[in-house]
Amino acid sequence: MADLKAILEQVKAGHLSIEQAEEQLAGASQLDYATLDLDRAGRTGFPEVVYGAGKSVEQLIGIIDRLQAHQDLVLVTRVREEQALRVQERMPEIQYIADAGLLVYTREPIVPKRPGYVAVVAAGTSDWQVAQEAAWTVRCFGSEARVIVDVGVAGIHRLFHRLEEIRGASVIICIAGMEGALTSVVAGLVDKPVIAVPTSVGYGANFGGVAALLAMLNSCANGVAVVNIDNGFGAGYMAGMIHRQTDR
Amino acid sequence: MADLKAILEQVKAGHLSIEQAEEQLAGASQLDYATLDLDRAGRTGFPEVVYGAGKSVEQLIGIIDRLQAHQDLVLVTRVREEQALRVQERMPEIQYIADAGLLVYTREPIVPKRPGYVAVVAAGTSDWQVAQEAAWTVRCFGSEARVIVDVGVAGIHRLFHRLEEIRGASVIICIAGMEGALTSVVAGLVDKPVIAVPTSVGYGANFGGVAALLAMLNSCANGVAVVNIDNGFGAGYMAGMIHRQTDR
Amino acid sequence: MADLKAILEQVKAGHLSIEQAEEQLAGASQLDYATLDLDRAGRTGFPEVVYGAGKSVEQLIGIIDRLQAHQDLVLVTRVREEQALRVQERMPEIQYIADAGLLVYTREPIVPKRPGYVAVVAAGTSDWQVAQEAAWTVRCFGSEARVIVDVGVAGIHRLFHRLEEIRGASVIICIAGMEGALTSVVAGLVDKPVIAVPTSVGYGANFGGVAALLAMLNSCANGVAVVNIDNGFGAGYMAGMIHRQTDR
Amino acid sequence: MADLKAILEQVKAGHLSIEQAEEQLAGASQLDYATLDLDRAGRTGFPEVVYGAGKSVEQLIGIIDRLQAHQDLVLVTRVREEQALRVQERMPEIQYIADAGLLVYTREPIVPKRPGYVAVVAAGTSDWQVAQEAAWTVRCFGSEARVIVDVGVAGIHRLFHRLEEIRGASVIICIAGMEGALTSVVAGLVDKPVIAVPTSVGYGANFGGVAALLAMLNSCANGVAVVNIDNGFGAGYMAGMIHRQTDR
Amino acid sequence: MADLKAILEQVKAGHLSIEQAEEQLAGASQLDYATLDLDRAGRTGFPEVVYGAGKSVEQLIGIIDRLQAHQDLVLVTRVREEQALRVQERMPEIQYIADAGLLVYTREPIVPKRPGYVAVVAAGTSDWQVAQEAAWTVRCFGSEARVIVDVGVAGIHRLFHRLEEIRGASVIICIAGMEGALTSVVAGLVDKPVIAVPTSVGYGANFGGVAALLAMLNSCANGVAVVNIDNGFGAGYMAGMIHRQTDR
Amino acid sequence: MADLKAILEQVKAGHLSIEQAEEQLAGASQLDYATLDLDRAGRTGFPEVVYGAGKSVEQLIGIIDRLQAHQDLVLVTRVREEQALRVQERMPEIQYIADAGLLVYTREPIVPKRPGYVAVVAAGTSDWQVAQEAAWTVRCFGSEARVIVDVGVAGIHRLFHRLEEIRGASVIICIAGMEGALTSVVAGLVDKPVIAVPTSVGYGANFGGVAALLAMLNSCANGVAVVNIDNGFGAGYMAGMIHRQTDR
Amino acid sequence: MADLKAILEQVKAGHLSIEQAEEQLAGASQLDYATLDLDRAGRTGFPEVVYGAGKSVEQLIGIIDRLQAHQDLVLVTRVREEQALRVQERMPEIQYIADAGLLVYTREPIVPKRPGYVAVVAAGTSDWQVAQEAAWTVRCFGSEARVIVDVGVAGIHRLFHRLEEIRGASVIICIAGMEGALTSVVAGLVDKPVIAVPTSVGYGANFGGVAALLAMLNSCANGVAVVNIDNGFGAGYMAGMIHRQTDR
Amino acid sequence: MADLKAILEQVKAGHLSIEQAEEQLAGASQLDYATLDLDRAGRTGFPEVVYGAGKSVEQLIGIIDRLQAHQDLVLVTRVREEQALRVQERMPEIQYIADAGLLVYTREPIVPKRPGYVAVVAAGTSDWQVAQEAAWTVRCFGSEARVIVDVGVAGIHRLFHRLEEIRGASVIICIAGMEGALTSVVAGLVDKPVIAVPTSVGYGANFGGVAALLAMLNSCANGVAVVNIDNGFGAGYMAGMIHRQTDR
Repeated sequence: MADLKAILEQVKAGHLSIEQAEEQLAGASQLDYATLDLDRAGRTGFPEVVYGAGKSVEQLIGIIDRLQAHQDLVLVTRVREEQALRVQERMPEIQYIADAGLLVYTREPIVPKRPGYVAVVAAGTSDWQVAQEAAWTVRCFGSEARVIVDVGVAGIHRLFHRLEEIRGASVIICIAGMEGALTSVVAGLVDKPVIAVPTSVGYGANFGGVAALLAMLNSCANGVAVVNIDNGFGAGYMAGMIHRQTDR
Repeated sequence: MADLKAILEQVKAGHLSIEQAEEQLAGASQLDYATLDLDRAGRTGFPEVVYGAGKSVEQLIGIIDRLQAHQDLVLVTRVREEQALRVQERMPEIQYIADAGLLVYTREPIVPKRPGYVAVVAAGTSDWQVAQEAAWTVRCFGSEARVIVDVGVAGIHRLFHRLEEIRGASVIICIAGMEGALTSVVAGLVDKPVIAVPTSVGYGANFGGVAALLAMLNSCANGVAVVNIDNGFGAGYMAGMIHRQTDR
Repeated sequence: MADLKAILEQVKAGHLSIEQAEEQLAGASQLDYATLDLDRAGRTGFPEVVYGAGKSVEQLIGIIDRLQAHQDLVLVTRVREEQALRVQERMPEIQYIADAGLLVYTREPIVPKRPGYVAVVAAGTSDWQVAQEAAWTVRCFGSEARVIVDVGVAGIHRLFHRLEEIRGASVIICIAGMEGALTSVVAGLVDKPVIAVPTSVGYGANFGGVAALLAMLNSCANGVAVVNIDNGFGAGYMAGMIHRQTDR
Repeated sequence: MADLKAILEQVKAGHLSIEQAEEQLAGASQLDYATLDLDRAGRTGFPEVVYGAGKSVEQLIGIIDRLQAHQDLVLVTRVREEQALRVQERMPEIQYIADAGLLVYTREPIVPKRPGYVAVVAAGTSDWQVAQEAAWTVRCFGSEARVIVDVGVAGIHRLFHRLEEIRGASVIICIAGMEGALTSVVAGLVDKPVIAVPTSVGYGANFGGVAALLAMLNSCANGVAVVNIDNGFGAGYMAGMIHRQTDR
Repeated sequence: MADLKAILEQVKAGHLSIEQAEEQLAGASQLDYATLDLDRAGRTGFPEVVYGAGKSVEQLIGIIDRLQAHQDLVLVTRVREEQALRVQERMPEIQYIADAGLLVYTREPIVPKRPGYVAVVAAGTSDWQVAQEAAWTVRCFGSEARVIVDVGVAGIHRLFHRLEEIRGASVIICIAGMEGALTSVVAGLVDKPVIAVPTSVGYGANFGGVAALLAMLNSCANGVAVVNIDNGFGAGYMAGMIHRQTDR
Repeated sequence: MADLKAILEQVKAGHLSIEQAEEQLAGASQLDYATLDLDRAGRTGFPEVVYGAGKSVEQLIGIIDRLQAHQDLVLVTRVREEQALRVQERMPEIQYIADAGLLVYTREPIVPKRPGYVAVVAAGTSDWQVAQEAAWTVRCFGSEARVIVDVGVAGIHRLFHRLEEIRGASVIICIAGMEGALTSVVAGLVDKPVIAVPTSVGYGANFGGVAALLAMLNSCANGVAVVNIDNGFGAGYMAGMIHRQTDR
Repeated sequence: MADLKAILEQVKAGHLSIEQAEEQLAGASQLDYATLDLDRAGRTGFPEVVYGAGKSVEQLIGIIDRLQAHQDLVLVTRVREEQALRVQERMPEIQYIADAGLLVYTREPIVPKRPGYVAVVAAGTSDWQVAQEAAWTVRCFGSEARVIVDVGVAGIHRLFHRLEEIRGASVIICIAGMEGALTSVVAGLVDKPVIAVPTSVGYGANFGGVAALLAMLNSCANGVAVVNIDNGFGAGYMAGMIHRQTDR
Repeated sequence: MADLKAILEQVKAGHLSIEQAEEQLAGASQLDYATLDLDRAGRTGFPEVVYGAGKSVEQLIGIIDRLQAHQDLVLVTRVREEQALRVQERMPEIQYIADAGLLVYTREPIVPKRPGYVAVVAAGTSDWQVAQEAAWTVRCFGSEARVIVDVGVAGIHRLFHRLEEIRGASVIICIAGMEGALTSVVAGLVDKPVIAVPTSVGYGANFGGVAALLAMLNSCANGVAVVNIDNGFGAGYMAGMIHRQTDR
């Protein structure tokens, strides 16, 4: 929650307008179309993240602009290239990570702040974008992320080849479409928590990722928990939170 | 199709009643509650199999009795122990294979008639009954079946330990509940066709075997085809048919 | 993997039979109906856990007996009271935790081995058994578990009343049936990972827990990952694994 | 039902053509492609509303034209901007409320006709259009609507901040996508009926709004009833009907 | 919220124990297996209702006992006859309404406290129990409920015969299984809000009430909102809340 | 609709009580738990049929008793043997057709009243009860029904053997579980309407008859319409109605 | 089946080429991409109908051309306007009925060949195209079709207004989207078979017509059978077949 | 697995670069976006196949280029024409089979290497592409494939006409959309394994191929196993593997 005294002193010193002070005390900043949660980092240790899908460029700019005044990090997910370019025209300080569909603004460069790393393991080439979304979210938490792709179980020796690196991670994100079998195999071989991400890669009785989702929820291996279909961000967030625990 | 001349000669010799001859010519034997398909073995190479679930003991006895007159092999699936015992009281020549829920009558002992074997690989202890149903169906085709259970991917070294035996088979039946991942792993390691059987083992988002069924239909490994949930008989039938090809 | 030299020395010293040595080298112990994964603790840091549902008392006893020879901890989940009593007749050293449906055997008493605790938060009285299953699984990992029940969002002040305790945990397990809203509210208020467990509590369009499962997968709050419906064990396992990270 | 005598007098006075009189007596006006229900306001207290989706501009104009002759209010829902502009070219008296996708014609300005108000509470920015559709439908009933957006449970203090205003309403419309948790939280805090509207905002296991729909149907808080996914109009209609009760 | 001063005076006067005072101030009463929400009536105008399904007789007695100390009305839903009889043995003051599956305790007799009534309209004889649950919940709100059964659309004149009575109500609860068509017909004929309750009456492609649920959510008539399948209590609660509005 | 004058004359002559006359004029007879539709035969040409499932023996007797006073035929569907026996104890004039689960009361014996017949074709022995329900419903319409069972497509010559008889019918009811393929094959071979009845025979991915239902709705052969799963009565009713057309 | 002698005589007379004679004897005409069923009219009384969706213009022309040589009527369903225009360029004798999406070629004009008519009743304006497809299919059978649209149950007097005309039909096709309630209401008021067509009109929990489909399968009124979603052709075919019965 | 000595000798002789040798020893070739499984043919008897959907032209070229260095056959599935043309511009040696959507590169011409053939039987014209994908995959295995289209059960004599050819095959691939009935009919008439492929041909309650998928999984005829919806490649692969068995 907001530190009352510090805010008042900033107002007195003229470093904070009356309006800004009100926002910080309420823990929320009101736009016409959004109520920004300025208190998010205080409660959860990570500032509010913006879901970019379906927002206009004007809305994105308005929200980013307001959040920049309060947060050291602004992260916008699910941004298409044409949206990103138009935001960057007006806000050149924003970085667009095209592979991950992310807009990122940070005061400081993104560097690992703690030892250890998160392994982002993906079954196929088609899971690439979800893997990148997960990896960059981990990095925004100040943790290292290592991406290992195309090690699906149809050629399981590819997985064993990388097993050392996977076993060395503090948390493992496991991404797979189709039948999602990679998760169970990985979880049976490691002593670290596995965050599973089903992807919508496949067709027919895949039902847009449902086949992989059910497989992961029913994993015969223990130590697996699942996020929504294609939700690389959610997995990266969960992994970042777990890894952050290790240096407390 | 029925061999007309042979039938007529048997009638003349008194080895066949008029009624039996009619049945054979029509390729069907009519009971009140069933129309038996006497021509099945002629068309498909395997006689009509009786689905025992939901049939009364009287109906089972009536059907078996009629089929015994025409077939060297009578196979009844999905028979519960109490049904079986009551059938056996009246028909002591029928064998009940309790683990597989099968009633079997054969003129000749069931022995392998060709080289090679079918591997029946099951992920868990709970898949035992489905595995037995599959294995005994294979044996009724005159092929050898070898059962390998509890080699699920949560401890994948158990599978590798038996890999030689699995790779040696002519056909592989792969049985798994929960997330059904075993199928994809096995299919990626062998050069033989894999018949996958999802089982209803599991709970919650398993949906009575749907999770494993979808996983198997979406397998990233090639050379997999799938039968209905818990359908050990169907898998054994398919495998028996394929293995039978090898000695033609 | 097994330590070859140590095993051989034990054989020489007569502390290990030839058969036991073979098992340890293979990392598996073969029963008729099961292939026990003796190498599990080596790979994943937790020994093989037995899924009790659908196993006969004879099978349970056989498996527990074999595992006791190799593991300091034997955990059997989803055991009904009548099964448990019959196992205990023959194996009085086994403890039955009726509320959680667990059979537990340990060489040493179960006590917390590290600071901090896991909060097990359940929305309603009907989620009690799932909560107990989760809590006792956490305890088997050597971590403290604190259970907080009946703080569902229909009376949200009950949750705020316990918020301090929940925020103090290293990991939070959040259990809810019906619409599963508790998870999103909790995850929005804490800076720790939340493992969500949907339960089958409810009726009608609840579809046996699907409503809560979908809600949790679609949580608008970040830092949530989900396990199967009613899978208290799975959540406890995941939380135990995460909490274990903190003292490495 | 139609007032016979009044109609006849209007015919006599020449204020009504024979055809119009017939229509009013039948309570229906026949177009080639539609049978307009002129009796709707008499039965339900609100005139027939036109569902705009999938109707051609010609059809919309034909229907509006006919309804204008009989009704003080003509409301057309789900109208896209290009349709609206072409209707307005020919019928400049029609108002298009773009945010709500509504075409509205009224003889009198829309103003609140009774004390009290309906609160339209939406979880996120993406629920804006559904919220506007609901609010404007309420206003067409002659009731005040106040819209409160982006107060989802991930930052629940935003909701508490507006709680006074929500509690002051006579009826509450609660709109949410993703997991739809807002409904249960709100309903647990107020003593007024809550009409819940699931929206299709989200992805993956959201299944186009099904996750939120199920959550709302299974709300652990009482006093909630649900309308179809994205059906802001339906919620506004229900709320308008309930609020209208208060001044009878 | 609790009235602090009044509580303290009651403590001083010895009318309230310290423990009771604490509970009232916290707005919650803690049992081993439940956290009772004593503040519910203050927030929502109706005290906490107990969901009886799956609770033991001991739990029911414990909860009722505690609630009786704080509430003028204790309502327990979904109670089977054998549970009820055993509760009544120990608590003879509790009334069991067998047709509705409700246990009710009230300080004062249940009588209508305001003019007007709620019409509970059910399509078939099989919807009787759901209708009774709804009607008695309405009565607990202090409103009159009139039950009209077996007026389904297969013989629509039965409905028209009772239309006057239905149109006279302030709120209408409409209960139907199978295809649930009654709701749309009723809603097209009245100027009052309709709360629809799908029931699980039917078979086959009824899917336990899903057919009626979908029909009601997609009603072509306006002024309909829907509660969960078989949720007579929920409909009665909603209707009671709406009707209560009329005398404010 | 009721013939007013005839009723009044019967009252005058003392053949009808005042109460009975009222009922006939209202077209409905009110019981506590049911509103009987006495006008049904007048509107639809077939009297109200009672759905027996879930009704108590007392309710069945009450309803039958009342209907007998007004209808020449009383038909009760889905009656279990124990219900039937208890009804027959009190109403020995009622016939119970156990194979079809029907209670039937008729003033006149059931005999065909018109030329031609309805063919009831069922794929398997397990579809027997549904076939009987359909056939007896047809007979209650005064049409002949011929039942042909166990002619499923796995042995398609059995169907061709009976094709002459099937092609000779005026309407064909086609009953099948599992994959429901029989319907398409039959419809491709006949020039008469085919009423398809999916049955719940099967297991696993059969989903209680959904597989057959979908197959029948998607039939590549024309001239097929479908009724609910296991709804032999509905198919018999439809066929009876169609066949009745032929002698008008 | 083909009349051998007649064919041979035509060959002899040179009216039939050898190839054409072969086709007629085989009852099939082979194209690269299709095997036309020339025997269809002989078996089912209606020639093969072409499903236009997904076929190229070249394929349509090839198929129509071949069928014209054998059939008095060629009907192609689901043809989009641009396909139709290109077919008509090459085959000006083909008629395109745009409202129904049908291409029709007939040797003789389409006129009713028997007394009576089929009523095509549709709930809303949006069901127009499905209604036209049904009506024109009926007409191709040589029966009269009368279309009655926009008589949905939200304004049920519109239906009663047309009831006389509906009751006068020999068969009724009932078309509705959303909740599909119209079917049950109509079927309860008539003594003729009702063919129900669910349409995909609606949104959200309509699931592309599933809501209406389930409603129709679960109709509480008897005498209803259902065809696939949006399948106006299928309903028209069924109705045509039934109506054809009446003049045999 | 790789032959170590042979590789080293090739390195020494300069026929293999160090990098190539490493790849072969690892059994994998690493690209940025893919980990190619060079060991696939060694394990499964068929080289890695590339899933073309969703890959960029650059990625396709990169992968094909690398695989050409190691494999005698490179097969890419689900390639659209515009992708194919651009690949062929750069790699003119690649063949594009447009009907099957396949890119194929082979060192040797594709010719049958063993006696016998696979029959590819498709129900309708619309199943053409799936049939071609299956047939060409069979051919890549070195087996003959014969395609028989448009023999669906609505005109079952078309099937019987081709029965001899179907019965002569070693394996049968059976492709059908809509209700998928063809599979059961074929399987009941042959003594060879049937691989069933449901297609997404159809509309409404077809649910994108689910109707046919369920039908095939529930086939009443034995000897059927099923692959994913529209998965012609998978069926061809399975059939190729089975047929290959016959010459071992």
